[in-house]
Amino acid sequence: MAKVSIVMGSDSDMPVMAKAVEVLERFGVDYEMRIISAHREPDVFFEYAKGAKDRGVQVIIAGAGKAAHLPGMCAALFEGPVVGIPMKTSDLGGVDSLYSIVQMPTGVPVATVAINGGANAGILAVKMLAMADSALASKLHDFIVEQKESVEKKDGQLQADGYKSFL
Amino acid sequence: MAKVSIVMGSDSDMPVMAKAVEVLERFGVDYEMRIISAHREPDVFFEYAKGAKDRGVQVIIAGAGKAAHLPGMCAALFEGPVVGIPMKTSDLGGVDSLYSIVQMPTGVPVATVAINGGANAGILAVKMLAMADSALASKLHDFIVEQKESVEKKDGQLQADGYKSFL
Amino acid sequence: MAKVSIVMGSDSDMPVMAKAVEVLERFGVDYEMRIISAHREPDVFFEYAKGAKDRGVQVIIAGAGKAAHLPGMCAALFEGPVVGIPMKTSDLGGVDSLYSIVQMPTGVPVATVAINGGANAGILAVKMLAMADSALASKLHDFIVEQKESVEKKDGQLQADGYKSFL
Amino acid sequence: MAKVSIVMGSDSDMPVMAKAVEVLERFGVDYEMRIISAHREPDVFFEYAKGAKDRGVQVIIAGAGKAAHLPGMCAALFEGPVVGIPMKTSDLGGVDSLYSIVQMPTGVPVATVAINGGANAGILAVKMLAMADSALASKLHDFIVEQKESVEKKDGQLQADGYKSFL
Amino acid sequence: MAKVSIVMGSDSDMPVMAKAVEVLERFGVDYEMRIISAHREPDVFFEYAKGAKDRGVQVIIAGAGKAAHLPGMCAALFEGPVVGIPMKTSDLGGVDSLYSIVQMPTGVPVATVAINGGANAGILAVKMLAMADSALASKLHDFIVEQKESVEKKDGQLQADGYKSFL
Amino acid sequence: MAKVSIVMGSDSDMPVMAKAVEVLERFGVDYEMRIISAHREPDVFFEYAKGAKDRGVQVIIAGAGKAAHLPGMCAALFEGPVVGIPMKTSDLGGVDSLYSIVQMPTGVPVATVAINGGANAGILAVKMLAMADSALASKLHDFIVEQKESVEKKDGQLQADGYKSFL
Amino acid sequence: MAKVSIVMGSDSDMPVMAKAVEVLERFGVDYEMRIISAHREPDVFFEYAKGAKDRGVQVIIAGAGKAAHLPGMCAALFEGPVVGIPMKTSDLGGVDSLYSIVQMPTGVPVATVAINGGANAGILAVKMLAMADSALASKLHDFIVEQKESVEKKDGQLQADGYKSFL
Amino acid sequence: MAKVSIVMGSDSDMPVMAKAVEVLERFGVDYEMRIISAHREPDVFFEYAKGAKDRGVQVIIAGAGKAAHLPGMCAALFEGPVVGIPMKTSDLGGVDSLYSIVQMPTGVPVATVAINGGANAGILAVKMLAMADSALASKLHDFIVEQKESVEKKDGQLQADGYKSFL
Repeated sequence: MAKVSIVMGSDSDMPVMAKAVEVLERFGVDYEMRIISAHREPDVFFEYAKGAKDRGVQVIIAGAGKAAHLPGMCAALFEGPVVGIPMKTSDLGGVDSLYSIVQMPTGVPVATVAINGGANAGILAVKMLAMADSALASKLHDFIVEQKESVEKKDGQLQADGYKSFL
Repeated sequence: MAKVSIVMGSDSDMPVMAKAVEVLERFGVDYEMRIISAHREPDVFFEYAKGAKDRGVQVIIAGAGKAAHLPGMCAALFEGPVVGIPMKTSDLGGVDSLYSIVQMPTGVPVATVAINGGANAGILAVKMLAMADSALASKLHDFIVEQKESVEKKDGQLQADGYKSFL
Repeated sequence: MAKVSIVMGSDSDMPVMAKAVEVLERFGVDYEMRIISAHREPDVFFEYAKGAKDRGVQVIIAGAGKAAHLPGMCAALFEGPVVGIPMKTSDLGGVDSLYSIVQMPTGVPVATVAINGGANAGILAVKMLAMADSALASKLHDFIVEQKESVEKKDGQLQADGYKSFL
Repeated sequence: MAKVSIVMGSDSDMPVMAKAVEVLERFGVDYEMRIISAHREPDVFFEYAKGAKDRGVQVIIAGAGKAAHLPGMCAALFEGPVVGIPMKTSDLGGVDSLYSIVQMPTGVPVATVAINGGANAGILAVKMLAMADSALASKLHDFIVEQKESVEKKDGQLQADGYKSFL
Repeated sequence: MAKVSIVMGSDSDMPVMAKAVEVLERFGVDYEMRIISAHREPDVFFEYAKGAKDRGVQVIIAGAGKAAHLPGMCAALFEGPVVGIPMKTSDLGGVDSLYSIVQMPTGVPVATVAINGGANAGILAVKMLAMADSALASKLHDFIVEQKESVEKKDGQLQADGYKSFL
Repeated sequence: MAKVSIVMGSDSDMPVMAKAVEVLERFGVDYEMRIISAHREPDVFFEYAKGAKDRGVQVIIAGAGKAAHLPGMCAALFEGPVVGIPMKTSDLGGVDSLYSIVQMPTGVPVATVAINGGANAGILAVKMLAMADSALASKLHDFIVEQKESVEKKDGQLQADGYKSFL
Repeated sequence: MAKVSIVMGSDSDMPVMAKAVEVLERFGVDYEMRIISAHREPDVFFEYAKGAKDRGVQVIIAGAGKAAHLPGMCAALFEGPVVGIPMKTSDLGGVDSLYSIVQMPTGVPVATVAINGGANAGILAVKMLAMADSALASKLHDFIVEQKESVEKKDGQLQADGYKSFL
Repeated sequence: MAKVSIVMGSDSDMPVMAKAVEVLERFGVDYEMRIISAHREPDVFFEYAKGAKDRGVQVIIAGAGKAAHLPGMCAALFEGPVVGIPMKTSDLGGVDSLYSIVQMPTGVPVATVAINGGANAGILAVKMLAMADSALASKLHDFIVEQKESVEKKDGQLQADGYKSFL
């Protein structure tokens, strides 16, 4: 049973959304993934978002670009936390997506991550689930240690081979 | 029977939305006016927007601020034209509202007017209705003439009394 | 007789404006298309915009970039609705075009769509015409259903073949 | 034992942070509240953030303005979810705070809410805690219903007394 | 006979435009001043701008706010130099006015000054006229010397009375 | 004897500045062209700008990017009109250059043209010189007619060959 | 003999610049303070900036607003470090000042602090001087400790009296 | 013993940071260079920044992008001057990095240079060190002269070979 539901309005958002999936798969978190447009198929969307709780979904990750309404409308229909990913846009760089997602009115928050922040959306969902799942919290701890080691390794290369080895 | 439906998500938008009403009243256009939040009462909103056509509504005017989803969601549920009014916001000046309304994806346009452009939203709705209503088109013509005369009167004052009479 | 007039100030805007044409052609709406610069040939422009009504034009779609005055000046001279398309610009992304078109003063609205939103401008014009044309309204309904099905098909692919099939 | 830790770098942020507290108090969620500057007292801050887990804290809510590093540094030191509140600033409106909080690099997300979104930060924390607390989830449901009723009441006033009653 | 024509679309711009007048009066430059809206009375505007040359006008100073088309349309119709003043706007600070005036397409420049830069528009017009008027150039030189002395006087106060005398 | 002086701080600005030269050459206006950095060789710059008047220069065209001080410092040292060209920048699109040039304080205006507006800077200089040079004014008139014909030709192609001939 | 020179182009910047003075006075650092406009009295400015080194000045603190050239021109004429303070502006919030100061070309850096960051400019100058002045470094350390204690005191009030004591 | 410490959070910043190194190498200034993430390895970072003084470091140069906390956190932990380099970002151009670095609160300044201003960060560090090192000050003077000659050479080419030789 999917604990996290990943939804996007267009398959053009897939490269960013796939980063969230990769995180969930790494942590062994069950997920469902959907392409549903709140604008083009509002009925499908309503059914999806209202039914999420009954399907066992605990967190929704929603990505959208431009006038990005999908995350906010998820937050209107689903009572659990919604993580929003603003897509980079070719004209405004994604500031339109960001404002459309983060500036939600009182009562209906969306937990917004960085523009194109697919991986961080996945990590944030894992952090929420890990609050009540000590095994997941332990994996999360390992992940954080790995991240640290990854930077240390780069610094090791710098000290050993010099900065020109990066250019 | 209301031809224009005016909707806002919060009564704090009323001063701007009232400008649209004043235009419609001036032109004698029947309207309905509602405070409905797409975020806080999505079910009420869905019923409202999907039922608009059957109530005889031909144009929806929707105003919203910040992460402004109301106009775009109206456009997702109502097949006629939707006019969107971005509200000025105290932190970002309304650029958040503007982007959230105007940057709609292909297939679901919102006819966006200026930030706080309540009157213009009303005029735009009248222009749409006047396409098939010659009496309304005639009133619109008179309105445009009046606007012109109003500026001419100001210029008359300038020529007669000098620029200091305006300071 | 053209019901919609599509106008741009420069042929460099054609790729975006062509999207509006494609929509009108799909819906079988008669249109005229012109390249006229309000800045470089103001006399030609005045004659064009003032004569539109007598040519039977009901909606003007005007696209322009940078200090984009064409849509607003159309709205000054033509009493029907004007749809404005802000062009993406290479330096400011199109926010200059957007502000120049959407921030119209009271009395002279332009129904503004997204940056480079050529298709949406066409759809908005169709929505306006469909208000008094039930055959067109019916086609519009079919179009909206098709849009929905197009997204459903993508979701079908996702469920069948997995997200990696999109990468 | 506090489940939520609310932290700000300056007491000037208190009016916004107090909105988060009011939400937590309404839901009966135990919290601690601290004024700690990551910039002015980094040692105190490190001890605070690293010790949060052992104190039983499950979510941190951090608010900051301008070059707002507090939420992101909490996310670097605390393994649970961190909710970030960008403060409105007098010069840039809060876009500086927003970018400093939301644009976190991969691996260290901050769940960002709207500029000055104190109440929403509290609600988001409650939503996270409610994932594993059905009593809290039930209160959350009631809260959402109340929000809906509050808007309905305003619409009732509009239908009964007209729009001028709001001006 | 007026050498400079000052035009604005609304009397609300008068406080800024008056600064331009004060400069012209100081330099003894003949001017005319008009309130004409390119949007609301395009015919009046066309006649005005096209007739300027025959009235002896050598420079037009045009001020406008929001989607500010007046300066650019003057530049389309008047072959001499046009100085544009972007008005500060309450929502976007005047960046909308600035982009609408300065980002003119090739062939139709507007000499743009700072937001609300009424005095500078007047000075720029004087500088243009002084190119072929040595008496005016001489007055301009005196003005520049006075500006210098005005700053020196402030510095004198600072050295004599200390910085607290300014607080 | 050069009537127009074209100056830039770096040869990387040459592609844009060359557009101004091409205009001046077309109109047969004598010019000088210099690469001088106000930042890297302030003494050379001072001598250049202060000596311009004595060399017979009537207008300076200055282009610069990023923290673009060259046009404003020319305006501080040269009593005639200065035309400023903001360069497009790779990070901020040129909005940094634009603000650094257009937002000049009272007393020291720079006649600012569009980002990368080299040709328009040349045309603006010609318009200033043509105020007291009827032969130049006549050439300017011809240029404006040519511009008009160029657009008409494009429209002719559109009417003859259809919009697909532009794609 | 002044080690730090504080300069501004207008006495309207004094409230911000005074914050820098207060810091220097607290640390007992000798300073000079001048009102000099690079735009209105370039000769005075040149003499000032070029002579600073010989007067013993080691750091210049320069504040300016809008198209803010003073800090950058100081950096062009003075070989030591220049600290730049962007002034908040009433229309653009100070982003114009910030870009005009921070975006300096290669070779001529300005050490830029926050918008209206007068105190920080003073502290930054002290930090530079303290690099070779152990007594000053010691005072700086005490200042940093005091800052820390100031925040701790606020937190003490919060723990003792509750958050409502701040509202 | 390193006088300057160069630190970045990710090796992707190396091309910009290398520009700072090249400057230090040119001036013969001893430096250390590290890849340390304040977000991913806060403990390593704390030890690094707090130990810098004891290692003899006099200036830290820190580069970071997006929600760029590294320079500000260095300034919180290291009592000497910190130079911050905002990295250009692919979505927002670097304005996010810039705001995150320059908008530091009172008491904790970061000497911010231009977006991607690696070389200028190096020069600024040299200027600080040269305050108490006359040999370094002399080299700095030579560098400034060379910069001047480099521009003069370009102007020489322009005068000799014409502007087309640059295109």
